[in-house]
Amino acid sequence: MRNILLTLCYIGTAYHGSQVQANARSVTETVQDAMEIVLGRREDVKGCSRTDSGVHANRFCMNFYTQSDLPLYALKRSLNALLPEDIGVLDCREVPADFHARYSCVGKRYRYLIWNSDGKNPFYKGRALEYWRPMDLEKLRPVCEILCGTHDFRGFCSAKTDQTNTVRTLYRCEVRRQGDLVTCIVEGDGFLYNMVRILVGTLLWVNEGKLDIGQVARALKEQNRSLAGATVPACGLYLDEVFYTRPVGWDAICEN
Amino acid sequence: MRNILLTLCYIGTAYHGSQVQANARSVTETVQDAMEIVLGRREDVKGCSRTDSGVHANRFCMNFYTQSDLPLYALKRSLNALLPEDIGVLDCREVPADFHARYSCVGKRYRYLIWNSDGKNPFYKGRALEYWRPMDLEKLRPVCEILCGTHDFRGFCSAKTDQTNTVRTLYRCEVRRQGDLVTCIVEGDGFLYNMVRILVGTLLWVNEGKLDIGQVARALKEQNRSLAGATVPACGLYLDEVFYTRPVGWDAICEN
Repeated sequence: MRNILLTLCYIGTAYHGSQVQANARSVTETVQDAMEIVLGRREDVKGCSRTDSGVHANRFCMNFYTQSDLPLYALKRSLNALLPEDIGVLDCREVPADFHARYSCVGKRYRYLIWNSDGKNPFYKGRALEYWRPMDLEKLRPVCEILCGTHDFRGFCSAKTDQTNTVRTLYRCEVRRQGDLVTCIVEGDGFLYNMVRILVGTLLWVNEGKLDIGQVARALKEQNRSLAGATVPACGLYLDEVFYTRPVGWDAICEN
Repeated sequence: MRNILLTLCYIGTAYHGSQVQANARSVTETVQDAMEIVLGRREDVKGCSRTDSGVHANRFCMNFYTQSDLPLYALKRSLNALLPEDIGVLDCREVPADFHARYSCVGKRYRYLIWNSDGKNPFYKGRALEYWRPMDLEKLRPVCEILCGTHDFRGFCSAKTDQTNTVRTLYRCEVRRQGDLVTCIVEGDGFLYNMVRILVGTLLWVNEGKLDIGQVARALKEQNRSLAGATVPACGLYLDEVFYTRPVGWDAICEN
């Protein structure tokens, strides 16, 4: 019995998230369909996280156990041929029996892309938030700083969360500009339902003067969702990296 | 009479290049169709260059004269609403009467994207060359260096060229890697028919050991197309920048 780790990359637009659902097409179900053809039976797969409907992934990890002795390169090539154009297998490898894509994961990085212009860029259509208001990143950086660290992020997650423990650590929260493209990068040990989209929405409200840094600190302290910004659309969000060992630099930040 | 400069961005996959053609859909014709609706008459437009069928543009400039006094923001918004999803107007401005998108241009930058992995990345499908052989950029850099400067590039252009003067200056020829994405960046005062695609094809042949640096130098010196590499597909090529003033740094390279 081998334990196989698949690293996927997908354009999430056409899918109702990563997780299998009763009445909507998901990324996992689509991958399982392709696997069933290649392996001759439907395997149970464990995903690293539950990405929302419409969210993209530069990297998404899943593992499954199989009796098949199909070589890894053949599995990868077959899956890539069978999967639709918007899902790809980047990598396929054998991992120790106790590896679990979700429980072995120590953290994740998300990226949120903002096409910050009133011009139209077809390359970012459906792949970034189109936001024309001028963005002052210098004004956002101190807000990013107070969001970093260990906090109870209940005020920054959807009321629909099923988590009872809402304490998470953000190791990195950064905004960058390259021309008209603004990228928000967050790394943390875990993320609550809609958390990244609410963090970015909060930054945009600070940008627009609807919130100031004091109010963000209060939203964090009082764990009050109604004090934080709006949830920005899924189309700009990418699961960017899944960490199975702690990246260099995280410990230093954790000590803050 | 105003002279208007439009800066476009487009995904070239669906178009037979930028230039109007008798029997195939082009980017220019598509823009003229939208302009005709907004301005009430079909205007003649001058494009900065003739991009090939399937080539993309991060920036493509065109200018036209108009009697219309429609505000520029209204022109931009209307065109963006009328244009298909794969063409966008990034910028729209008035320029001096003697400005010509092609003749005022002093140089251009192209990017060629290579998805250098045997994994499948849906984000680069149709937007990069998929090339799985390992690439040794250190081996390619000296080749990039000898291609820089002023040369007769007859050996690096399609036999179908209509140019009699095939001398061009390359100010920059660079290869970079970011993870599995390799980018070739070239800047020059002008480019011949298929020149960038043959330059990149030559680098790939050097990578594969089909050519060495001495043979590339000979192809350049003898102006012999059959000594250079293959023409790589259009899907990886982007017109990236159009220069109307000489960028800082170009003069230093020119003195070499």
